[in-house]
Amino acid sequence: MSDPALRAYRDADWPAVSAIIREVLAAGETYALPVLDDADARDFWLGQPGAVAVAEVDGVVVGTAKMGPNRPAQGSHIGTASFMVASAARGTGVGRALGEHVVAWHRAQGFAGIQFNAVVATNMVAVALWRSLGFEVIGTVPGAFRRPDGSCVGLHVMFLDLAGMRP
Amino acid sequence: MSDPALRAYRDADWPAVSAIIREVLAAGETYALPVLDDADARDFWLGQPGAVAVAEVDGVVVGTAKMGPNRPAQGSHIGTASFMVASAARGTGVGRALGEHVVAWHRAQGFAGIQFNAVVATNMVAVALWRSLGFEVIGTVPGAFRRPDGSCVGLHVMFLDLAGMRP
Repeated sequence: MSDPALRAYRDADWPAVSAIIREVLAAGETYALPVLDDADARDFWLGQPGAVAVAEVDGVVVGTAKMGPNRPAQGSHIGTASFMVASAARGTGVGRALGEHVVAWHRAQGFAGIQFNAVVATNMVAVALWRSLGFEVIGTVPGAFRRPDGSCVGLHVMFLDLAGMRP
Repeated sequence: MSDPALRAYRDADWPAVSAIIREVLAAGETYALPVLDDADARDFWLGQPGAVAVAEVDGVVVGTAKMGPNRPAQGSHIGTASFMVASAARGTGVGRALGEHVVAWHRAQGFAGIQFNAVVATNMVAVALWRSLGFEVIGTVPGAFRRPDGSCVGLHVMFLDLAGMRP
């Protein structure tokens, strides 16, 4: 299998991206969202300011990330991002490639930092990946995510400082 | 001046509520939002699931709060709220009355906790008020809020546990 190739999202990617979003939301393990219909999925993934990237392996879109300001106006110097990887492609470096792309994009755009608002604390692969890219856990909202088995686990707020925002 | 009287928002309150929202956003000190036009202000304040309350003093609406789930689906057991108080009414207990109302509403609705996503760290009155109601600072995103003078200050994530979510 080749290394993932990153590029900007194009309209023709929607069927592949939509299928990945549906699969990830149906699993119910990582996003506090119901399975979205096509219009809501489009709005969720493509409807905000910023950029959307896809990761291809052997010409097939296997992952996607969206990125942009976390808040408007007084908060727009801090970015955020969301990630989706097809289950068949996990463990192959797609998430890391998307994460590195997202960090590079924010640096290039002049963002002062990147905030992840809700990383499921039991999603060990994601938490370890973001830590390896320099993110730290700012805090954890206890029990804020209800897993499919009914158990409640914490949601991490994670942050990567790109401009020495730390006092 | 009488104690603030709390009641549910009614359509006829919009002009007063809209004026308070505009005043608070124009000050630029507490919300990461531009000044919104009327339609966007309505969507922001009235467009989400949950409830909206107003505080009246001597028959005049001087403050308002909106409340409801912080996230959909897997996150809907944790609530959130936003508050706006007219500058002329600050320091008169309106914020505390709204805060107590919001906590009581979440308890009555069976929420497991209340999360404030972005409390400006230099907003000492608000931070002290939420602490006095039992909220704790879960973490602070450094420099995530740009004040009107250009300085960047932290945004607190605050949480009130209503159901023993703490491990």
